[in-house]
Amino acid sequence: MANDSNKFQAIISHCKEYGFIFPSSEIYDGLSAVYDYGQNGSELKKNVRDYWWKWMTQLQDNIVGIDAAIFMHPTTWKASGHVDNFSDPMIDNKDSKKRYRVDHLIEGFAETLPEAEGAELIASMEKLLAAEDFAGLKQLIESRKIKCAISGTVNWTDVRQFNLMFSTEFGSVSGEEGDNMVYLRPETAQGIFVNFLNVQKSGRMKIPFGIAQIGKAFRNEIVARQFIFRMREFEQMEMQFFIRPGTQKEWYEFWKTERMKWHLSLGIPESRYRFHDHVKLAHYADAACDIEYDFPIGFKEVEGIHSRTDFDLKNHQEFSRKKMQYFDPEVGPDGKPYGNYIPYVIETSIGLDRTVMMLLSEAYEEQDLGTPDKPDSRVVLRFPAKLAPVKLGILPLTKKDGLPEIAQELMAECRSVFKCFYEEKDTIGKRYRRMDAIGTPFCITIDHQTKEDGTVTIRYRDTMEQERIPLKAVKDLVDKAIQ
Amino acid sequence: MANDSNKFQAIISHCKEYGFIFPSSEIYDGLSAVYDYGQNGSELKKNVRDYWWKWMTQLQDNIVGIDAAIFMHPTTWKASGHVDNFSDPMIDNKDSKKRYRVDHLIEGFAETLPEAEGAELIASMEKLLAAEDFAGLKQLIESRKIKCAISGTVNWTDVRQFNLMFSTEFGSVSGEEGDNMVYLRPETAQGIFVNFLNVQKSGRMKIPFGIAQIGKAFRNEIVARQFIFRMREFEQMEMQFFIRPGTQKEWYEFWKTERMKWHLSLGIPESRYRFHDHVKLAHYADAACDIEYDFPIGFKEVEGIHSRTDFDLKNHQEFSRKKMQYFDPEVGPDGKPYGNYIPYVIETSIGLDRTVMMLLSEAYEEQDLGTPDKPDSRVVLRFPAKLAPVKLGILPLTKKDGLPEIAQELMAECRSVFKCFYEEKDTIGKRYRRMDAIGTPFCITIDHQTKEDGTVTIRYRDTMEQERIPLKAVKDLVDKAIQ
Repeated sequence: MANDSNKFQAIISHCKEYGFIFPSSEIYDGLSAVYDYGQNGSELKKNVRDYWWKWMTQLQDNIVGIDAAIFMHPTTWKASGHVDNFSDPMIDNKDSKKRYRVDHLIEGFAETLPEAEGAELIASMEKLLAAEDFAGLKQLIESRKIKCAISGTVNWTDVRQFNLMFSTEFGSVSGEEGDNMVYLRPETAQGIFVNFLNVQKSGRMKIPFGIAQIGKAFRNEIVARQFIFRMREFEQMEMQFFIRPGTQKEWYEFWKTERMKWHLSLGIPESRYRFHDHVKLAHYADAACDIEYDFPIGFKEVEGIHSRTDFDLKNHQEFSRKKMQYFDPEVGPDGKPYGNYIPYVIETSIGLDRTVMMLLSEAYEEQDLGTPDKPDSRVVLRFPAKLAPVKLGILPLTKKDGLPEIAQELMAECRSVFKCFYEEKDTIGKRYRRMDAIGTPFCITIDHQTKEDGTVTIRYRDTMEQERIPLKAVKDLVDKAIQ
Repeated sequence: MANDSNKFQAIISHCKEYGFIFPSSEIYDGLSAVYDYGQNGSELKKNVRDYWWKWMTQLQDNIVGIDAAIFMHPTTWKASGHVDNFSDPMIDNKDSKKRYRVDHLIEGFAETLPEAEGAELIASMEKLLAAEDFAGLKQLIESRKIKCAISGTVNWTDVRQFNLMFSTEFGSVSGEEGDNMVYLRPETAQGIFVNFLNVQKSGRMKIPFGIAQIGKAFRNEIVARQFIFRMREFEQMEMQFFIRPGTQKEWYEFWKTERMKWHLSLGIPESRYRFHDHVKLAHYADAACDIEYDFPIGFKEVEGIHSRTDFDLKNHQEFSRKKMQYFDPEVGPDGKPYGNYIPYVIETSIGLDRTVMMLLSEAYEEQDLGTPDKPDSRVVLRFPAKLAPVKLGILPLTKKDGLPEIAQELMAECRSVFKCFYEEKDTIGKRYRRMDAIGTPFCITIDHQTKEDGTVTIRYRDTMEQERIPLKAVKDLVDKAIQ
C-alpha cells in the first residue's frame, strides 16, 4: 500500500483513468477548483445522492424534500448574514497581481520557521484576525517580510474583506451596476428557510418536521486544493429540522446519532470517523459539530450538524415582514397550547462531493497478489454493492459458440433492475481486473458448460472467489445484495 | 373543464396550493422567471429525471452518463459560438430604464393593430432582423411610435445585441475586469463535447456511442413568462450520440423514433404530440426538429433532436489544439479501415421543467361529480403511477382501536420500496381528495374489518372504485403497478 500522500495522488490518477472524475474543461487546461464526473463517477455520485434522499425523506416520518433554485432574491443573503459576514481577509501582491487569503499566506510562511517561532506568529495572526485589525495584519506581513511566491516581492496592497459569494446580473433592466445583482447561492439551506411557510402550509406539516434538499452551491474559494474536497462549485445535501424552542438539545443529540447511523451504513467502520465539536460557534448556532472522516489527507469534515436556533427564520421575518411563525396546538406543561412561535432548527449538512471522496478513499486498495516467481497486483475499489456504479459485469468467455447470445439474454433480464456492463473482449482475467478497478461487486462468466447445465461462474470482487450458480439465480442474487 | 387559458392559470394555482411549484423566494415577492419545486414537485421532477436517466443510459447499449460542472473554461463558449452568436437584439427605454427584446416589443404592438396591418409590420421586422439592420429596427419602432408600457414614451436607445449568458468572476487574481470572467453554462451539451476524449478513452467506447447528461443551464431571458416553460434557470436532459460521418441521416431518424417512444411511454397519447421540422437551421445543424406537446398555451417545444455534424468537436479541436478524433478500426466498403475522423453527432435535448409542465398539463383534470341535488367536484392529477410523487396513501379509518398500528406496520413494510404517505386526520373522503390532488394512484384504508379478516380497502385514483384485497397483497400490487 502506498503511503497516505501517495495514496491520495494514486486515487486522483485512478479517478481520471477509470472515468470517475476529470479536471473540468481539461482540453482547455482545466478550470481551477472545478471537476467533472465521468461515466463511473456520475453513477457513484447519483447512487450516494439517491441513498441520502431515500434515507432522509422516504424512510423518515415527517421529512419532505424540496428543490429550490440556485438563484434567489438577493435580500435572502442580507437576511442570512452572507452579504455582511461571508468573507475572508485578502491581500494582493502589487507586482504579480496574485491574491492571497491572509491566513493562508501567513500560515504558509509560519511553516518555514522553527516550530516555536511559527506558533508564535500564528498566535499573533489569530489575535489580529479576531480583532479584524486589517492594518495590523498588513504590518505583520510586511514586518516579517513575507513574500509573494510568484513575484518574490513584499509589495502588498492593503488587506481587504473579500466576499465568497459569486454574483451575476439579471438583465431585464438597464441602469446602475449592481441594481440587478443576483448571487449564486453559497449554501442550499436558505432555499429551505424561505420556503418554510409554503411547505408547512401546503403540506400541512406538524412540528417537529424536516425539509431536505440536494443541490449545487458555489463559493469563490481563493485557493484551489485537495481535489474535490474544496471546490468552487459543489453539491450539498442538507436537511433543516423545525422544532419547538427549548427542545434543541435533545434533537441535536438525536440527529448526531441518526446521521452517524447513516455513515456507518456506508460500510465504513466507526474507527474511521470522529465527532469534532465546534468550540467557537458561528453567530447563528448554540451548538455545532462536524462528522470527520480519516481521509488520506487527514481527518476532515464531511458533515456538519448545527443547532441554528431561530436565527434564520427570525431574520427572514425581519427582512421580508412576513410572519415566519408556526401555531402549535399541543398543550404544554402549563395546561395551555404552545401557540405561535418561530421554530428552532437543527441542521444536518453533508457535502455530496466529499462523501464521494470518502467512499473512494475507503474503497481504494492496491493489492499485491504476486508470488516470488510471478509478480501480480490489482487495484480494487471495494464500494458497498448498493453504491457501486456498476453492479454486474456480464462476460461471455468467448465471442462465439452462442455464448454472447446467452450473455445478452442475461443482460436483457438484469439491466431493467440494476446497472450492468457487458464486455466480450480480452481475457477473462483482464476483464475481471477492469471490473475491480471500477468497483463492480459481481461478475458473471458464461462458458461452454452454461450451454450444457445452465450454470455460470460468479466471481466476487472482494475475495476473488468463484463459484458456479444457476444462470436463473443471477438476477435475484445481485438484486438482494444491492438492497 | 375550464377553458385553456383558465386551465393554465388553474394549474399554476394548484401547483402552489399543493406543494408542487412555488415562485422563487416568494417571501421577498419572488424572483422573475425563477421557480422552486416544493415537496410534491421535487418528487415528480426527480421521478422524471430518474426515468429519463435509466432509459437513456442503463437500458441503452453504448450510452454512458456524465455530470460535468456548470462552470466551464470560458474558451468553451468561444468555440461553441455562444460568445459571438448567443444574443438577441434589445432596446432600452431611456425614461423607464426598462429593456425590451426588439421582436417582443414590435410583436406586442402588432397585436393591437388590425390583422393585415399587424402582419405587415411583423414582415418588415423579420426582414430587418434577418439583415441584422439595427438602425432600421430602431427607425421602425420610432416611426410607428411604439411606446414603452411603463413610461409611455418613445424615447429609445439604439438597438444592441445582448448576450444571453450569465457571467461571473473567478476571484483568484486581481486585475482588469473581465480577466477572470466565467459563464454559467447556457446548455449542458458542451460539457459532453469537452469530455468526449476522456470518456471515450477511459470507457473504451466504440462508435456509435452516446454520452448523456442532466443538469442546470442558465439563460438571461429578458421576458419572464409562461410559468416554468421559460425560466432563467432550468434543467436539461441531453444526450450526444457520436457516429461515423455519413450515417447521420439514419441515426437522426433512429433517435426521432426512439425519443417519441419515450414520450408515448409517459402515457400521453400520440395525438397530443407533433414533430416540427426546423426550416431555418442553426449554424451547427444539417437537420433538426422539435417534439412539441399541446400545452394549454398551445403546441410548444419540449424536446429538440438535432443533427449537429462535427461542428462542436471540430471547433473544440481548433480552439484547444487537442485532436478530437476517433480511430475507427472497422473496415469500410472500400476494404480499408475507416481510420481517424472527427465523429458526427446526433443530439437529443429535452427540458426537464418543460416535461414536468407537460405531465402536469396532461394529468390535471377538474371533474364534476355532482348530481342536481348534491353538487360535488374534484381536482385529480392523473399521473402515470411510475412518475407520481407519492405512490400509496395509507389511511386508518379512525385514530383508535389499533387501526393506526396496523397502518404503521403497512407503512414500515412499503416505504422502503416506494414513497408512501400516512394520514389519520379528517374523513376518509377528504383524505382521498387530497391524495387525488397530488396524484397518488392508490389509497389503502384500514378499518375494523381488517382486524377480523386481514383485508383492506384499496381505492383507485382514476376510477374512484374501491375493492377489498388482502393486506398482505398491497405491497406487491403497488410495486408491480409502478414498474
